[in-house]
Amino acid sequence: MNQSDPHTDGAVPALLERGRALAAPALREAVGRLAPPTSTVAAYHFGWIDAQGRPADSDSGKAVRPALALLSAEAAGAEPETGVPGAVAVELVHNFSLLHDDLMDGDEQRRHRDTVWKVHGPAQAILVGDALFALAHEVILDPGTAHAARAARRLVVASRKLVDGQAQDIAFEHRERVSVAECLEMEGNKTGSLLACAAAIGAVLGGADDELADALELYGHHLGLAFQAVDDVLGIWGDPRTTGKQAWSDLRQRKKSLPVVAALAARGSAADRLTALLTADAKKSQAEFDDFDEAEFAVRAALIEEAGGREWTEAEARRQYDTAVAALHRVPMPGPVRDRFAALADFVVVRQK
Amino acid sequence: MNQSDPHTDGAVPALLERGRALAAPALREAVGRLAPPTSTVAAYHFGWIDAQGRPADSDSGKAVRPALALLSAEAAGAEPETGVPGAVAVELVHNFSLLHDDLMDGDEQRRHRDTVWKVHGPAQAILVGDALFALAHEVILDPGTAHAARAARRLVVASRKLVDGQAQDIAFEHRERVSVAECLEMEGNKTGSLLACAAAIGAVLGGADDELADALELYGHHLGLAFQAVDDVLGIWGDPRTTGKQAWSDLRQRKKSLPVVAALAARGSAADRLTALLTADAKKSQAEFDDFDEAEFAVRAALIEEAGGREWTEAEARRQYDTAVAALHRVPMPGPVRDRFAALADFVVVRQK
Repeated sequence: MNQSDPHTDGAVPALLERGRALAAPALREAVGRLAPPTSTVAAYHFGWIDAQGRPADSDSGKAVRPALALLSAEAAGAEPETGVPGAVAVELVHNFSLLHDDLMDGDEQRRHRDTVWKVHGPAQAILVGDALFALAHEVILDPGTAHAARAARRLVVASRKLVDGQAQDIAFEHRERVSVAECLEMEGNKTGSLLACAAAIGAVLGGADDELADALELYGHHLGLAFQAVDDVLGIWGDPRTTGKQAWSDLRQRKKSLPVVAALAARGSAADRLTALLTADAKKSQAEFDDFDEAEFAVRAALIEEAGGREWTEAEARRQYDTAVAALHRVPMPGPVRDRFAALADFVVVRQK
Repeated sequence: MNQSDPHTDGAVPALLERGRALAAPALREAVGRLAPPTSTVAAYHFGWIDAQGRPADSDSGKAVRPALALLSAEAAGAEPETGVPGAVAVELVHNFSLLHDDLMDGDEQRRHRDTVWKVHGPAQAILVGDALFALAHEVILDPGTAHAARAARRLVVASRKLVDGQAQDIAFEHRERVSVAECLEMEGNKTGSLLACAAAIGAVLGGADDELADALELYGHHLGLAFQAVDDVLGIWGDPRTTGKQAWSDLRQRKKSLPVVAALAARGSAADRLTALLTADAKKSQAEFDDFDEAEFAVRAALIEEAGGREWTEAEARRQYDTAVAALHRVPMPGPVRDRFAALADFVVVRQK
């Protein structure tokens, strides 16, 4: 993975800034269509106001999806602005899923702020999520063109996969064994589908044929899987000072993430010892489990690493990254646009290291 | 309201049966696209299987919306089958809202069966609702035509209004006063928007111009408001043997329905006594309130009636019905189709009497 290509160096911050600058006003305009109290709760979720309704300016994330959507329009030879409804719609779908997932998962914090269900109650988290979901599909259909209808079709299929992925993730929590293939399918739905849509939606709005749109979706899908593999490694071994999460965060939540399922699928004594430990863990109450000290998580992390779960996941991130970048070469597009897609992939995959 | 027109007598059961017969297989096909466990929980919600997964055949409701969607296609001179994706999409949006509303309202029973959140838990109610919402927009975009894109735009606007209406309904529970205008706006969003969409969506799929589609939406919107006015009267004075609900059901839930807000807005001693009683009620805990005996609800119902709330709401149902039927005469459509729309309006408004 290449971070010092002279053609793309410095390109990523500019791409992210362009995505933010073009999408933010359109996103605020769209959210402004909602009636109060829905619009107010949505503004809290986006960090535009605080829990008391005072103006705020919270961290709104890296904005990779808007950057992809605008670049995607350029892949089809259109102006980046053509991708704006796609960027806004994808952000709305992403935030719909955050609102519902935080409630379902009982997560109390997001981007260092209390989550919507924690501040405004579960009903508001459901309703505002629903409203953002509807708004996403309204925004994408706004242009009223045949291109917009094709973009809407891709967005809605991605949305359904996103919901499927969350359903699988929840179902896995209650299962003793999850295969690597099942975990990859879940992560493809939960993370891959919307990145795939972001990478293609601008091109579709710009009149791309299915061949170009499908190749860009393939790039986004594998980029999502690469991102998730990196994220799964950081979820266990990441430094709390850079990830902003607790140490061993995914182990504390007993998540069946890629390093865990890959380690459990391996043969040998480390895998056997890990299987025995995690089987015993699964029978513990949450309170017992919460009382674990650091050393107990360290033992599990060491066994996952010894069984090869970390190495496999790091290699998987590279394989997914390579597949993503290869997809860019399947179809013609302006060279500088392809370079920028590749630079965004580098940024997404090597982040936080 | 006319129930014995020789041109339409017997037409309503046939219209409802046609709606059910044409929409049901397409609905099952669409739900079959979902991955398990989402598809299984959805099948339970629709009454196709019981809580143990055994085949079931529960009451699936009156199917007014599918009947409207097919008739709507005929209004545009198309075959009724043209309206099928619209019928399915509207049913999916309706059921998305039932799944989320039952959870938010804490309702444990729907159509004499335990609700999804009660059987499968809150997370499944959220997820399966989300999945049906996405599926609705996928189905409507399936034909891939410009007509389908226009139909999708109307469906998504109706969906957003539906969510706005539920948000308003919940917000009103915490407010001391709600005006008649606010109540009508909420009911227009919550009930009117989707009936409006059902009445127009088939026509849009059949190539109708905006003038015809807007007139049919207007008919459906006012039909929804007429239905809701009748429903609000039944919610207080309906016979439990025919409504299937508890006596004084809306009073038990302290709902600010039309008869209540109209009575509170009136002048005179009955309105004043009602205001005093309901203001005191609002301060009671749910447990205290649940201990009320029949006579206490009867007193409140009598005051609402004395203050004119019942009479006003019954008159409002007629006004909305008249406005709905008048909308049918604004635009050209085949005479028999207009008669059937009017017959469906009769059926919806005089039901359960």
